[in-house]
Amino acid sequence: MQLENLIKNAYQESADGIRKGDLIKEVVGIREYILNSKKIIVPNWNKAKLDVINQVLKEFGLRKAKHLEFHTSSCDLTRMPAINKAIMALDIAPCDLVIARGRLGVPGSGSMLVIIDNKGRLLSAAISPPHIIHGKTIKDAVYYEMTLALERLGFTRK
Amino acid sequence: MQLENLIKNAYQESADGIRKGDLIKEVVGIREYILNSKKIIVPNWNKAKLDVINQVLKEFGLRKAKHLEFHTSSCDLTRMPAINKAIMALDIAPCDLVIARGRLGVPGSGSMLVIIDNKGRLLSAAISPPHIIHGKTIKDAVYYEMTLALERLGFTRK
Amino acid sequence: MQLENLIKNAYQESADGIRKGDLIKEVVGIREYILNSKKIIVPNWNKAKLDVINQVLKEFGLRKAKHLEFHTSSCDLTRMPAINKAIMALDIAPCDLVIARGRLGVPGSGSMLVIIDNKGRLLSAAISPPHIIHGKTIKDAVYYEMTLALERLGFTRK
Amino acid sequence: MQLENLIKNAYQESADGIRKGDLIKEVVGIREYILNSKKIIVPNWNKAKLDVINQVLKEFGLRKAKHLEFHTSSCDLTRMPAINKAIMALDIAPCDLVIARGRLGVPGSGSMLVIIDNKGRLLSAAISPPHIIHGKTIKDAVYYEMTLALERLGFTRK
Repeated sequence: MQLENLIKNAYQESADGIRKGDLIKEVVGIREYILNSKKIIVPNWNKAKLDVINQVLKEFGLRKAKHLEFHTSSCDLTRMPAINKAIMALDIAPCDLVIARGRLGVPGSGSMLVIIDNKGRLLSAAISPPHIIHGKTIKDAVYYEMTLALERLGFTRK
Repeated sequence: MQLENLIKNAYQESADGIRKGDLIKEVVGIREYILNSKKIIVPNWNKAKLDVINQVLKEFGLRKAKHLEFHTSSCDLTRMPAINKAIMALDIAPCDLVIARGRLGVPGSGSMLVIIDNKGRLLSAAISPPHIIHGKTIKDAVYYEMTLALERLGFTRK
Repeated sequence: MQLENLIKNAYQESADGIRKGDLIKEVVGIREYILNSKKIIVPNWNKAKLDVINQVLKEFGLRKAKHLEFHTSSCDLTRMPAINKAIMALDIAPCDLVIARGRLGVPGSGSMLVIIDNKGRLLSAAISPPHIIHGKTIKDAVYYEMTLALERLGFTRK
Repeated sequence: MQLENLIKNAYQESADGIRKGDLIKEVVGIREYILNSKKIIVPNWNKAKLDVINQVLKEFGLRKAKHLEFHTSSCDLTRMPAINKAIMALDIAPCDLVIARGRLGVPGSGSMLVIIDNKGRLLSAAISPPHIIHGKTIKDAVYYEMTLALERLGFTRK
């Protein structure tokens, strides 16, 4: 079922006051959208995070993402940098899926990896503590976040 | 240092292209804001999540939150229900801090707990997989998210 | 030229600090997107506004919009109801263009009509004072806003 | 009455499905908030727009705004530059009111002047066509927008 229909049904349940929580068919719908995504882009100023993200996508049997090289530091002057980085990428490039990683909220709030679809809808995410708290390398943090963002939807390693 | 100054300095670093990541003084600034918050509110239609949130706040030596009873199902018809629930609470009640829990993104995307300040800035968050994937009780999921949202900023149990 | 390319070029100019303002080719790009839109939807609980909007679209030589009947009152509990109504419609229905009308901001702030594309990007808008200030009928206010939203992009009546 | 209470009552009406439109007491509440605002700021890279805005504020018997000099071009890489410029200013400076002017939506969509309060709520706004369509000087456009943003709330020249 298309995401539009799944979302419409869920919104109807909420409007009727009978919504009980996420349905398995909704989670399956998100997984199918991600599985069927042909053009996946990762916006970033350099390629550092792209290789790690592609490694995880491969381990989960998903298509490889392409690098969208662009100025992303402007997003750090917004309230939710990671989300806004993903939206910015969506607005300047044709694509089915955007995976973006950046700050969660205010400076000091740590990081977030988000997956959005071709309309800008948030499909999944994962967050990490500020680097100075967790002490992981960026590579390890992105690997962890990308894995978590897929596993929490029920994706498994091949 | 006030959040306004910390944010301004961080934005200046980003505009100058020299930002390296979260600074310890920024994380400390967020912690101090949370520690000094006198009026903490939790918007929800019923009190189910409030008791768990208050239990965790107590364990971490923070002030008790108050229940803001209001229609929150309308937020489920937005792109980011948890964030919008927090903003809605901020807009209808005087407060220093809002802690809200709701859906992360599209139906099927799991849940998110967010902590925002008195201007609506996102200070911390934690996310869980969809209930049908993780199988935890709501109580356990909220306990886990509230704990994580504090620990990732360096807060520790007393 | 596709909107993605026009936006990317404009963002590049802003990142380089040389942006001077809207370019004629950008305005033309928006007009072309609107002219080529096949599926135009107007979300609303009843059909009151649809007929007026369609009358204006016809006068300007544009395709007729279709009614998306859905609960839109939930959007009134958000910070920017008109925009959120448009985004909600986009998220639950396949379409090329959404035209939505609702409150501008906080209660008492008057109304806004917005036109967004299939990615949720804001193409045009028009605002009216609160009804109790201007005293126009809803029909007249919508007619005025829809006309203004098109004329400000350089569209003219046929 | 505080904005929080006015908004809460309005949201309750919407949740109950009985909302009829803006109430006079809501418009009055917004006017009072603006009249009582002591610290008004205008974010901009240079002072060009500040003088015009202050001229209009004076004509309407309101307090003078102060210049918040900051990098605002990053906001032009977001979906709604004018709103995001106002929010950015709010996040980096203590204030009661922010008046910001910038692009409405996508490049080519013209400009918007917004007035937000100390929580980031949108109180009023005015929009202009793209400069290349209307041909006004920036000074005239800002004068027009600032006047309109106040008059639509029922403010009058002294």
